[in-house]
Amino acid sequence: MLGSYNPYYVTYPVTLRALGLAPVPVATDPARAFCPTFGQIDAVAGGGRSLLINSPNNPTGTVYDRATLEAVARATLAHDLWLISDEVYDTQVWQGAHLSPRALPGMAGRTLVIGSMSKSHAMTGSRAGWIVGPADAIAHLMNLATHTTYGVPGFVQDAALFALTEGEALEQRVSAPFVRRHALAERVLAGQNAVRALPSIGAMYLMLDIRATGLSGEGFAMSLLEQHAIAVMPGESFGACAAGHLRVAMTVDDDTFVTALTTLTQFAKGLT
Amino acid sequence: MLGSYNPYYVTYPVTLRALGLAPVPVATDPARAFCPTFGQIDAVAGGGRSLLINSPNNPTGTVYDRATLEAVARATLAHDLWLISDEVYDTQVWQGAHLSPRALPGMAGRTLVIGSMSKSHAMTGSRAGWIVGPADAIAHLMNLATHTTYGVPGFVQDAALFALTEGEALEQRVSAPFVRRHALAERVLAGQNAVRALPSIGAMYLMLDIRATGLSGEGFAMSLLEQHAIAVMPGESFGACAAGHLRVAMTVDDDTFVTALTTLTQFAKGLT
Repeated sequence: MLGSYNPYYVTYPVTLRALGLAPVPVATDPARAFCPTFGQIDAVAGGGRSLLINSPNNPTGTVYDRATLEAVARATLAHDLWLISDEVYDTQVWQGAHLSPRALPGMAGRTLVIGSMSKSHAMTGSRAGWIVGPADAIAHLMNLATHTTYGVPGFVQDAALFALTEGEALEQRVSAPFVRRHALAERVLAGQNAVRALPSIGAMYLMLDIRATGLSGEGFAMSLLEQHAIAVMPGESFGACAAGHLRVAMTVDDDTFVTALTTLTQFAKGLT
Repeated sequence: MLGSYNPYYVTYPVTLRALGLAPVPVATDPARAFCPTFGQIDAVAGGGRSLLINSPNNPTGTVYDRATLEAVARATLAHDLWLISDEVYDTQVWQGAHLSPRALPGMAGRTLVIGSMSKSHAMTGSRAGWIVGPADAIAHLMNLATHTTYGVPGFVQDAALFALTEGEALEQRVSAPFVRRHALAERVLAGQNAVRALPSIGAMYLMLDIRATGLSGEGFAMSLLEQHAIAVMPGESFGACAAGHLRVAMTVDDDTFVTALTTLTQFAKGLT
């Protein structure tokens, strides 16, 4: 078993099944912005080998606070699990600082932190990333990488080195549009109840609760696509817990984003 | 089981084991330039699921002739195996034309041909390739690719499209140095018996039989590296069948290649 959160990134379950692993989702609650509790993990962790988390989170935009990460750490230690911590949005936290669960007591020896240039430096296509973990685990992972990908292309390594050398200024330039669009979204969504945004302070997504419309996420997303040519991801794609929600990617320019989100909100109002 | 040839590309066994598969090498004979016979495949194919071949071959530079490919096809059909045909050196055949086993009777429905830009267009680092096979198998492979690599970076696709549009002229420009160095090697190796090159008409490698020196491939390669700073791969790295052999990559410039091969030959003569 490899626990992954519910909601989770769409491809996780199949990626794990392709390796012969059995993913077991950890059910979470929209009322807590889908942040897991010790009890929710504990309920399904028996017999597990590792636990996969992702904060800042795709699809929710949620950043796990210290208490949530401490609950994750406690469950990981209680069940003697490896913690696979997908932190690819670590430079895109808009309030407070990024905290890795690897920094919590007792966790460095059992945590594998996944890092990447994809989001922090908008190098999504380049497939350049890294894993931080205990030396003996890394030795195994290097052996595995040698026999699967054989390494990152030289020209991608050059680009990554250049981008990293630019420092935080570049990272902020990449993340600034998402902070700005998040503020724009708050304005668009103010003063109505048909669509409710879950609290989010990171990554590049908004999770919208559209249960007031009576439609499923899937039904809403398909109608919005057909009637207004606006594409959003139905919450159900990310697991049953996110039913009745939508993931909005804030990856179009500001004007398009505001127009599309306004249309989405009007559309939802018309349904309630 | 997934049969792979012996000798085989170094990383094959571990790549397969990492997927939980048990690779079973097919023993071949240096006297036949390591080309497999029906009997050699038949001897180990029982219970197998697929058979992996590579022609033109790394590490030997051998190109399987029609009779060898017919023996492969016969064994594949007899044991109801998938044939995974690694043909990444298909543009680097110096005598005759490349023949894919997929073209043989009854084989198109059970053959997966692996193609790549790595060798034909010297785009080794770019990791751009393709698989040709039956539509239903490809549908599964596309699903798997979506959940593992997520696709080839756009800028690599652009480069590959450009390179393919250049046609055979570019492919010949890439393969010409290996044809030229192969001819240079024949001249260096003429008139002595300490080192014997196996017949090769493709890829970018020479397989040298150095058993007359009394050393193992490993022993010879280490001594050559230490005494003359020349690096070659010991045959043993590619499986037990290639013991007492060396793989020479013809991937240095002509002058360096001739000097190094001359030094290697002198070194071997000194040992006999």
